[in-house]
Amino acid sequence: MQVWKDYQAQHKDRFLNELLELLRIPSVSADSRHNEDTKRCAEAVKQSLVDAGADKVEVCPTAGHPIVYGEKIIDPSLPTVLVYGHYDVQPPDPLDLWTSPPFEPVIKDGKIFARGSADDKGQFYMHVKAFETMIKTNTLPCNIKFMIEGEEEVGSNNLGVFLKDNKERLKADVVLISDTSMISMENPSLDTGLRGLAYMEVEVTGPNRDLHSGVYGGAVANPATILAKMIASLHDDNNHITIPGFYDGVQELSAAERADLNKAPFDEAEYKTDLGVEELWGEKGYTTIERTGIRPTLEVNGIWGGYTGEGAKTVLPSKAFAKISMRLVPNQDWEKISDLFAGHFKKIAPASVKVKVTAHHGGSPYVTPTDHVAFKAASKAISATFGKEPVPVRGGGSIPIVALFEKVLGLKTVLMGFGLDSDNLHSPNEKYGLENFYKGIETIPYFHQYFAEMSSK
Amino acid sequence: MQVWKDYQAQHKDRFLNELLELLRIPSVSADSRHNEDTKRCAEAVKQSLVDAGADKVEVCPTAGHPIVYGEKIIDPSLPTVLVYGHYDVQPPDPLDLWTSPPFEPVIKDGKIFARGSADDKGQFYMHVKAFETMIKTNTLPCNIKFMIEGEEEVGSNNLGVFLKDNKERLKADVVLISDTSMISMENPSLDTGLRGLAYMEVEVTGPNRDLHSGVYGGAVANPATILAKMIASLHDDNNHITIPGFYDGVQELSAAERADLNKAPFDEAEYKTDLGVEELWGEKGYTTIERTGIRPTLEVNGIWGGYTGEGAKTVLPSKAFAKISMRLVPNQDWEKISDLFAGHFKKIAPASVKVKVTAHHGGSPYVTPTDHVAFKAASKAISATFGKEPVPVRGGGSIPIVALFEKVLGLKTVLMGFGLDSDNLHSPNEKYGLENFYKGIETIPYFHQYFAEMSSK
Repeated sequence: MQVWKDYQAQHKDRFLNELLELLRIPSVSADSRHNEDTKRCAEAVKQSLVDAGADKVEVCPTAGHPIVYGEKIIDPSLPTVLVYGHYDVQPPDPLDLWTSPPFEPVIKDGKIFARGSADDKGQFYMHVKAFETMIKTNTLPCNIKFMIEGEEEVGSNNLGVFLKDNKERLKADVVLISDTSMISMENPSLDTGLRGLAYMEVEVTGPNRDLHSGVYGGAVANPATILAKMIASLHDDNNHITIPGFYDGVQELSAAERADLNKAPFDEAEYKTDLGVEELWGEKGYTTIERTGIRPTLEVNGIWGGYTGEGAKTVLPSKAFAKISMRLVPNQDWEKISDLFAGHFKKIAPASVKVKVTAHHGGSPYVTPTDHVAFKAASKAISATFGKEPVPVRGGGSIPIVALFEKVLGLKTVLMGFGLDSDNLHSPNEKYGLENFYKGIETIPYFHQYFAEMSSK
Repeated sequence: MQVWKDYQAQHKDRFLNELLELLRIPSVSADSRHNEDTKRCAEAVKQSLVDAGADKVEVCPTAGHPIVYGEKIIDPSLPTVLVYGHYDVQPPDPLDLWTSPPFEPVIKDGKIFARGSADDKGQFYMHVKAFETMIKTNTLPCNIKFMIEGEEEVGSNNLGVFLKDNKERLKADVVLISDTSMISMENPSLDTGLRGLAYMEVEVTGPNRDLHSGVYGGAVANPATILAKMIASLHDDNNHITIPGFYDGVQELSAAERADLNKAPFDEAEYKTDLGVEELWGEKGYTTIERTGIRPTLEVNGIWGGYTGEGAKTVLPSKAFAKISMRLVPNQDWEKISDLFAGHFKKIAPASVKVKVTAHHGGSPYVTPTDHVAFKAASKAISATFGKEPVPVRGGGSIPIVALFEKVLGLKTVLMGFGLDSDNLHSPNEKYGLENFYKGIETIPYFHQYFAEMSSK
């Protein structure tokens, strides 16, 4: 709509500067040393919603980091969209690999480089600015509620309670989230599903103290060696996961569905070049698109034990640790999988070591029905601004709470993400394209318009 | 001798306080942040030799940490003993496991708790005090030379050059070292050999940057997983090392020799209780004494990669690392083994990762001839002060330079250590018994006396 275009063109630079301010706050939810920053970030989000024209804006305390809520109810008889996002970010390390400080955003080659630029500050903020656009141009076609949390990167442990306690306040017709990516700006896509997650931490203890590797080497189990053997055994030669029962009930797609999925443009040579690898790796019998979308996976996110400093230390360590997470697909329950993992990992441990397994957090997988009116509205909105209908794809990432929305609030979710896989999410030099940012702000009002129209039919 | 007894009884407390002063200097050779402390420690060692009565005492610069030299030549026609020791210590971490600060020595239950108390400050200092005893009582029966280095814990990289450059100055009849342990004070023992060492560091690189484990998990080789698989493959089900050629030429002992070796008192139940393990681990077909003495081993000294901080980070790391060292036995050459390891490790790496292997340092194994006059003198000295003849045992640790002494100086070495395996060498809460310290000071003069007598025969 022209009024939107004009308003956005006029306030373009302010929109960007406001986002940069938000990116300067190191709201790292995993690191308690940043608790104050996280609080500060919640306050900033609250202010942005107030300024944009939302009512009843509130920073809601939880047992962990607070949730920011705000709403605009123009007519209870109109449909209501619940916008979800998160203002917390991943830890920035390894810091030395950043070409500019993670919390001092810089614009380079048309991209915003900063931790959180794409995941998810840059994306949820598009909704705040799209909302402002509709408010200031008196064109808001439906009711909007905002729920921006601060614990997505650590498992949204307190969101479930918040949902249960606020069912009334959160009543809506659909959840709208921008926290995923598109294939490319030339090939817009819409996620039809997300993988679930089960994140575990394991501790393997050998001797009760660090030992001299010469005096005791060869006589006592080395926990680092044993941990390596245990991790190695979790994938077989075909890279299938070996945990008994892991694949039970995993939804197998039909040949037709798989064919559709593989229609999405994908250039393996380009993919390898971008990652700097000679060869890809993965579960035998599936394409890369399938491996990252419809198949469950198990990854070592971190491993440590013994002497990791400068030089050499001839120690036989007492303990070795690993952080191991699994991505889950439809019909895999994250709590059941966490238990399966814990049981299996303890079972395969030799008597020469002790093993402790802790479940960090998780979430179940989710699939969006493509015939849902909100999905159609999103598809139409993207077509309107990208001039091309989006390809439906399965996202490999996880937003654990999406399944929760359906369970607790009975709401379907539309995943309208504007990021790119190359945005370095969770990595050094995270970035978000200016074009993606503005395109998102431009597209979102169309979603609300179409959703309102199509719902009333 | 009574004069020794009297002198030592009189100066007992000063001997201890001087050692404690030395232990307060954090001379961690592996950590360049401690270079100034290491220098300071060398100066303190120099002063202690001067005070004890040595001549031509000098802090000799090297490409790395300096070597302290001193001597007392009473009569060129008398035999000469070259005393070797090292004033550098292992890094103290993990610091949180120390019950008292590593460089603030405390005496508890008759033991000195401090990094370096047993390895090797507490042990080489016995020689300084034994030397002082003989000087002050005018009973020195032979010539003594001291060579105390500062790079033993990092591979003595510059000692070889020093030996070559100082052949004349270092001329002697035998090398005497106290840097090993005894079975117990009730069961004194003398090491008849040491294992060699090859210390490697490996770097496995998967993707060229840290990745989001949801977006890329299952499609790209995870270097931590691959490293685990590679490490796991280094031992077979019988815990034999799988590197082709690793055991080539390994000296196999005769049934009789093995029987002798296993005569050394060893209580497996006690051993397991002390280490807090349910079961021991090691190469099939060999006893614990053999596994730690006459068999080569491979240990992971450290492993790290990905996110190791607080909480959870869903990252697929770009790199994973490990420090891996091998203990070697007679007829294994450390440089050849290092090459074998590097070649094998690169060979077993899948095409989906890149592997870099670096050799930190090493040393060849060594065996002391039990019929050597100096070995007999050491045995007789221990019998004189412990009232019991020492059991000959094979030490599991490595003092890489012992082989070098033979190669460059043509000298045999006697390993007269007074420590205990339970001294927590290279571990938190390293300790050294006061009794061991004083017993050593009491025994050493007897060694010199007997060595002088037996040599002149």
